[in-house]
Amino acid sequence: MRPVICTVDTVLLALRGDELVVALFKREHEPYKSVAALPGGYIHPAEDLDAYAAAHRVLRDKTGIEVPFLEQLATFSGPARDPRGWSIAIAYYALLPYELLAQAQKPAMTLINADRIHTLPFDHKLIIDTAVARLRNKSQYSTLPCYLAGDTFTLPQLQRIYETLMREPLNKVSFRKKMAEMNALEPVEDQMDTGGAHRPAQLYRLKAQFRGNLQMLRRGL
Amino acid sequence: MRPVICTVDTVLLALRGDELVVALFKREHEPYKSVAALPGGYIHPAEDLDAYAAAHRVLRDKTGIEVPFLEQLATFSGPARDPRGWSIAIAYYALLPYELLAQAQKPAMTLINADRIHTLPFDHKLIIDTAVARLRNKSQYSTLPCYLAGDTFTLPQLQRIYETLMREPLNKVSFRKKMAEMNALEPVEDQMDTGGAHRPAQLYRLKAQFRGNLQMLRRGL
Repeated sequence: MRPVICTVDTVLLALRGDELVVALFKREHEPYKSVAALPGGYIHPAEDLDAYAAAHRVLRDKTGIEVPFLEQLATFSGPARDPRGWSIAIAYYALLPYELLAQAQKPAMTLINADRIHTLPFDHKLIIDTAVARLRNKSQYSTLPCYLAGDTFTLPQLQRIYETLMREPLNKVSFRKKMAEMNALEPVEDQMDTGGAHRPAQLYRLKAQFRGNLQMLRRGL
Repeated sequence: MRPVICTVDTVLLALRGDELVVALFKREHEPYKSVAALPGGYIHPAEDLDAYAAAHRVLRDKTGIEVPFLEQLATFSGPARDPRGWSIAIAYYALLPYELLAQAQKPAMTLINADRIHTLPFDHKLIIDTAVARLRNKSQYSTLPCYLAGDTFTLPQLQRIYETLMREPLNKVSFRKKMAEMNALEPVEDQMDTGGAHRPAQLYRLKAQFRGNLQMLRRGL
């Protein structure tokens, strides 16, 4: 009996303006050598503490960055998804500010619109579609979208990110009420955003205990 | 390099009165031979179409029943969770009416309170805790609890199931409004529940297209 192939694959998502983009990397090895696909690799039992650690290792090697948020998405499996044989892909998704992803820009990386994926190697289109659905759904009732903002952001900037993900305008008063209810943000002292034509706006950031840890709303936005 | 051990494990949940119970089975083989644990087994690449099919096969072999609802929960992995070596457990959870689970009662099966799990082999306590949290959370905004009722049920019976899972009383009018909003139930013609001291109540069932497929509420209960 041939052993099952065990890999991790990560959907790296960022917002480029109002466009949700996913990062693909040119594959270095067969199968699908030189074709753009999700960053992934084999689990290394000798060094990985678990699949989560394996996903972090693969991202570090391929992008050079530590992502601020990485969460398990789902596991995809079967005899046909990989030409090498029966395989398991433990899929993760990571969110990061576009500026951070752009720093990691390497010749091997391309960014494509996450809502308009065409054919990709393996079942990577299905994995990306699953990640995008998870992100849009969880945006309704958690701090997840905050990871797409930079370390600090104004409330109007954050509302715009939520609106982009939820694809609908949100009422400013109720958005702020929900953010207050989650109690996951704190003002950054002595820092105001003075850019733009408006008067300076207060900058916020995620409280330390909520960085890497989602805070949930009992009732959604 | 030794291959990674690939298994599926399923958390089988039912309501015995107001008690959420999980089914454990005495293990037939080492490690932990004769100890009660989640029903699980190796993936069989030669016969399984995917991990979901493997979970169904293992449940069929161990319980003799086809569960009405089975969904992937999460994947647990690492070098320490199984004494045989670096392992992956793709975990599923299944919901079923207590009457169906009781039919499958075999000498090897024990039912224990899912909220009061003590030590179990492998990381099965963590897997059960994760499944119970998922069930309680998803009860707030989906048809998931319907799988714990029988094929047909009255609205008061269904409300009681939601209340048990959510651990709080629900307002009858708003509960019925949310059920109507999901539009996933249909009355069973010419069938009334005549048991009990009350006047006969209408019986309902899940519409065919929502059996095995969750329907979601945009805003929770």
